[in-house]
Amino acid sequence: MLHQMWQVTRDKASEIRPVVVAFRVSGANSQRAEIGRQIMDEKLKQYRESINNIDAALVFMLAERFKVTQAVGEYKARNNLPPADNARETEQIARLRQLASDANLDPEFSEKFLRFIIDEVIRHHERIREDAS
Amino acid sequence: MLHQMWQVTRDKASEIRPVVVAFRVSGANSQRAEIGRQIMDEKLKQYRESINNIDAALVFMLAERFKVTQAVGEYKARNNLPPADNARETEQIARLRQLASDANLDPEFSEKFLRFIIDEVIRHHERIREDAS
Repeated sequence: MLHQMWQVTRDKASEIRPVVVAFRVSGANSQRAEIGRQIMDEKLKQYRESINNIDAALVFMLAERFKVTQAVGEYKARNNLPPADNARETEQIARLRQLASDANLDPEFSEKFLRFIIDEVIRHHERIREDAS
Repeated sequence: MLHQMWQVTRDKASEIRPVVVAFRVSGANSQRAEIGRQIMDEKLKQYRESINNIDAALVFMLAERFKVTQAVGEYKARNNLPPADNARETEQIARLRQLASDANLDPEFSEKFLRFIIDEVIRHHERIREDAS
């Protein structure tokens, strides 16, 4: 491509040269932009691979957590224990906030996160009670 | 305690016996109930220890995820890339739903979970943009 452009310059004298030069610069720029874009794509791809790995770990951890809370729900229903336990929840939140702060994660977010999970657990427990009755 | 009760029975003849027997049964019941409660407490304690371990893993995983998305946010801001990427989000959701289904976790919940996390990520990215401007 560049080679052909140089031929045009040699054949058609100086009036064409500026145009061709402009072409060359813009070609180099777009080539540089293309390389830049490839580097960016590669960089984002690497980040996204890490996020994908972590998300898989989170999903499997959550699945395991719900397995345990499912067992707790069934156990509580069988033994006529109340589904919610406020003292336990308070203790869990305090613990998670401390862990979050150790891990440099916003403690507010960790609390919101736990409430999000607990709400789902309570929905599961209610379903277990309904199924049992 | 039980030994003393038997002595009462021997000393005070048959009229007292039923009362004492009733006492013994109720004592045995409350003892059995106490043992039952201890077993339940121990069982719940074991479940809760598992939940605590998993929650710690989740918090540290989330902290790591936000470290990566923080880097992505800074990278996008530096390179003037848009903070949200709908195609990427759609792909992430499809992937997580599949993983959730493999792990026997409700795919609806996994999608809600990812949205919950992404909302927080977007809040972080907006903060990065504001800090940069």
